[in-house]
Amino acid sequence: MTPHRLAERAEALAELRPALHDKDFLLSYEQPDDAIAFVNRAAGWLHDAARAGLSLRMFDGGVGISIFRDKSTRTRYAYRAACSMLGLQTEEIDESTSQIAHGETVRETAAMLGFCTEVVGIRDDMFLDEGHKYMTEVAASLEESAHKGALLGRPAVVNLQCDIDHPTQALADLCHLEQVFGGLPALRGKKLVMSWASSPSYGKPLSVPQGIVSLLTRFGMDVVLAHPEGYELLDAPLAAAERFAKESGGSFTRTTSMREAFAGADVVYPKSWAPAWVMRERTKLLRGRETAKLAALEADALAQNARHQDWECTEDMMSLTRDGKALYMHCLPADVSSVSCERGEVAASVFERARLDTYREASHKPFVIAAMILATRFADPAAELLRLARRARRRRGA
Amino acid sequence: MTPHRLAERAEALAELRPALHDKDFLLSYEQPDDAIAFVNRAAGWLHDAARAGLSLRMFDGGVGISIFRDKSTRTRYAYRAACSMLGLQTEEIDESTSQIAHGETVRETAAMLGFCTEVVGIRDDMFLDEGHKYMTEVAASLEESAHKGALLGRPAVVNLQCDIDHPTQALADLCHLEQVFGGLPALRGKKLVMSWASSPSYGKPLSVPQGIVSLLTRFGMDVVLAHPEGYELLDAPLAAAERFAKESGGSFTRTTSMREAFAGADVVYPKSWAPAWVMRERTKLLRGRETAKLAALEADALAQNARHQDWECTEDMMSLTRDGKALYMHCLPADVSSVSCERGEVAASVFERARLDTYREASHKPFVIAAMILATRFADPAAELLRLARRARRRRGA
Amino acid sequence: MTPHRLAERAEALAELRPALHDKDFLLSYEQPDDAIAFVNRAAGWLHDAARAGLSLRMFDGGVGISIFRDKSTRTRYAYRAACSMLGLQTEEIDESTSQIAHGETVRETAAMLGFCTEVVGIRDDMFLDEGHKYMTEVAASLEESAHKGALLGRPAVVNLQCDIDHPTQALADLCHLEQVFGGLPALRGKKLVMSWASSPSYGKPLSVPQGIVSLLTRFGMDVVLAHPEGYELLDAPLAAAERFAKESGGSFTRTTSMREAFAGADVVYPKSWAPAWVMRERTKLLRGRETAKLAALEADALAQNARHQDWECTEDMMSLTRDGKALYMHCLPADVSSVSCERGEVAASVFERARLDTYREASHKPFVIAAMILATRFADPAAELLRLARRARRRRGA
Repeated sequence: MTPHRLAERAEALAELRPALHDKDFLLSYEQPDDAIAFVNRAAGWLHDAARAGLSLRMFDGGVGISIFRDKSTRTRYAYRAACSMLGLQTEEIDESTSQIAHGETVRETAAMLGFCTEVVGIRDDMFLDEGHKYMTEVAASLEESAHKGALLGRPAVVNLQCDIDHPTQALADLCHLEQVFGGLPALRGKKLVMSWASSPSYGKPLSVPQGIVSLLTRFGMDVVLAHPEGYELLDAPLAAAERFAKESGGSFTRTTSMREAFAGADVVYPKSWAPAWVMRERTKLLRGRETAKLAALEADALAQNARHQDWECTEDMMSLTRDGKALYMHCLPADVSSVSCERGEVAASVFERARLDTYREASHKPFVIAAMILATRFADPAAELLRLARRARRRRGA
Repeated sequence: MTPHRLAERAEALAELRPALHDKDFLLSYEQPDDAIAFVNRAAGWLHDAARAGLSLRMFDGGVGISIFRDKSTRTRYAYRAACSMLGLQTEEIDESTSQIAHGETVRETAAMLGFCTEVVGIRDDMFLDEGHKYMTEVAASLEESAHKGALLGRPAVVNLQCDIDHPTQALADLCHLEQVFGGLPALRGKKLVMSWASSPSYGKPLSVPQGIVSLLTRFGMDVVLAHPEGYELLDAPLAAAERFAKESGGSFTRTTSMREAFAGADVVYPKSWAPAWVMRERTKLLRGRETAKLAALEADALAQNARHQDWECTEDMMSLTRDGKALYMHCLPADVSSVSCERGEVAASVFERARLDTYREASHKPFVIAAMILATRFADPAAELLRLARRARRRRGA
Repeated sequence: MTPHRLAERAEALAELRPALHDKDFLLSYEQPDDAIAFVNRAAGWLHDAARAGLSLRMFDGGVGISIFRDKSTRTRYAYRAACSMLGLQTEEIDESTSQIAHGETVRETAAMLGFCTEVVGIRDDMFLDEGHKYMTEVAASLEESAHKGALLGRPAVVNLQCDIDHPTQALADLCHLEQVFGGLPALRGKKLVMSWASSPSYGKPLSVPQGIVSLLTRFGMDVVLAHPEGYELLDAPLAAAERFAKESGGSFTRTTSMREAFAGADVVYPKSWAPAWVMRERTKLLRGRETAKLAALEADALAQNARHQDWECTEDMMSLTRDGKALYMHCLPADVSSVSCERGEVAASVFERARLDTYREASHKPFVIAAMILATRFADPAAELLRLARRARRRRGA
């Protein structure tokens, strides 16, 4: 990819109106098509430019805050890598060495952390009905403080996974599909199965399946959501998926049979998640520190999972897909049977064959995050990419 | 603020002789007037330049170390934001994953951390008679190691709050007063009340009130220190306040009546702190790990606090101030009655009215820290600001 | 050191063929002479350039990952300082907030952390037969992921101390010897004693003595390894030391008498380490969480140490060395008798005399690490140094 070609592509991006400047990126299904298209194409641009050795530095100093309310390796790293590429230093707010909490203090702390900050990346996915709410509280405080002149600017909040959506994952997955199938138009009519899968752990968030179905239905795909009874997802992202399927000429269907779902599929995304009622109950019990009831809940939930151990992505299951060769996707880490657990989401041989593919899938995430930062921080983000292409500075040996 | 105007202001700064090059910034009351004036004006310059979008990068690589011996969100972030703006990477020394301690190891560790370091920011405010001593030990080791050729240079130690002073807070507060009243000369003759206030917690440091009275008396203000009997501050900063009041033509008086103090006040700063004897006893008991005695001490201290619950900044108290409209100041977080506690330092309605003001007050801190780094690292710091103004590089889209 | 002279020295470096591009730096004794010579000379170049105030920034964005599987202050800081000087941001992977482990997950995590990464620095020195193995696993995963197009490039793994070697320490020690004796040729024929010394703690790694004898025998020194029976080192680095001694015209001998070793020595390096069998047993017991047996093992090991308390670097011992003035070396922190422990590796007066020297010894480490990053990331690393010299940008006031 030459700087000249990158410049042409940056110029072409000017046709989009992402309308994200000084805004947040919280739920992808609330974003207009141009915002989604811009993040997708800008992420691709940044990825190609990085592979071509270009420096992507857009900031000469400044801070990217991160708040992780759950353990994280991949997303934490992807966020830091994105900030670093753009020239921002990352500052992680550790709740154990600070005093962030809900309510009054969220508002104040957000203001205190916003002075010289470009972006606040938040992961808060464990407690149903909480994560998205927390992010909107932080955003509201930043908005107020910026409006009243207490901050240098209005930092953007970027959702690094909440209880409703995981937009950086779903958009990275979209970039991967685009590469594998040779462009977004090629996705039209392809059958993608977002399927529940069995796991020996419980309490996995619902945000990945919700994010996948509410994003990929925008591209004319035939999206099938499969799960056993009792593993229903939240209403709002499903309603969005239905609306998008209609608008895009694709489809969104649901089934309680993994085999039926896999039949003729072009893409399968088998992944465990918890029943919504378990997540809600768990939130309540964790708050009340009801240890005994939590143990009982875990036992119940695991017993429920165990009744569906046949929801495993085996060779047999894969053989049902188109030519037996559907693309296997996963956000990682997967529960691989007889490797990371006795019996889990996917058979070892299926996963091993797809393993490098899942790494390539994950490799888009830093660039998706970088594209979100670009889109929220610059009034004319395409012009900024054009500037980088023309500057043509090397990242290594700069 | 145009680069041209910024250049003029940088040139005007050359009249000051801060004499801080290759030195530390530990206690503001030990600094000559020019050092205080330089930090104040350079902080204002950096803040205005940042708002104008200028890049403030002065370093092309290098490290700013931080050592926090107490929980911190605001000051930690402010330090990192300052380092980031100037082009330094922050490296926090976590005592739980390293082995820093008092005595021999302080000397050695300071040397080990000084090789490529520009500045060491330290917060050590919990133990009376300890924090300032620790900072001087670190500084002495850096001085020796630099002098003997073991380091690239002599890193500066910057006090991010000790047992005696909180200079980055007090100087940020000064910047705020300057903005609110329209310049430092306008502070002359204004009545500022640094008042103790009630709190349901105990063991709050004395450094904020000590820092406030020993700084603001330099500007011709009528500074009143108010607290119940038993909440006396340390002698040294009070002696400095008296001396400064005389020199500046202001006054420094003390009272044990909050109402008397508030009468006709232009500025009120109601904030809790612990009695010095409690802090000393606590230091001793914490060292001896005497858990039972610590609990008894806490109970005693809280009972003592509880006898003064009327030391609350209520609407009634505020009505005593000049036109009932004194500026309310706080270093945050405040104990807000019926919000963050049942009954605390300030009534909810008073705090809510002042809330955004306290955010603006806090917004100066990163720039005060940056000004201290500038003043301690450059032989001619005004020339460095002039260079930034003439370079006129944008921070965003650089 | 003028930019002109630095440019000449960079040009002279082009004669070496380090052959480290896109490779790892794990065990110094597996590296060809040119790789060792390059790291030594490039470290010296970078150190001199830094002292001359030159900016060493080679990267315009990018990440240096660090993984510390043991407490660390010095090496952690040295790694971050090196990354910062070169323009990389450091991202520390904390195993308590992520989920890195051996086996399947190492492979996957390494891939996930490699996307935009230049270098992965790892310290894993506690468990015998583990650390080096872990580093090779990480390197293999990065190699595979890079080869299959999942990464932007092939990040280098740099050994920040494993169970076999501590190359950044040994190479920093080499830089120190070079400075003290006036060049590497001057080391020829000098007697260096790597001696065990007594300590009240147990479980110290073997990597420092192994690294020292397997590196310094390359330079024609008469290297003596001294320790009581029962404190034998691993075979592989000793075999390398014997081979290097033969090739370089130096010698490598072993003794169980500290006095005999110190007689006529030019350099002494008295430092405690654990018997290999204790480290192996400890690894096993720690894995099985056998607390009682661990306590028994510690008691045994300390009792064994206590039988050799006369292995202390006293004034009397030092008087045996050449003119009573051998250079004292230590990787720090040392167990100083009557200072950091009752009776340890070195007498207080001996250590105090050498103290600043040990700081200067340690000061080379950031530059050794920076040289390793340079050598592994650039196809023509000498040309990159030449570019820095010609650019002649100041680090401060850049």
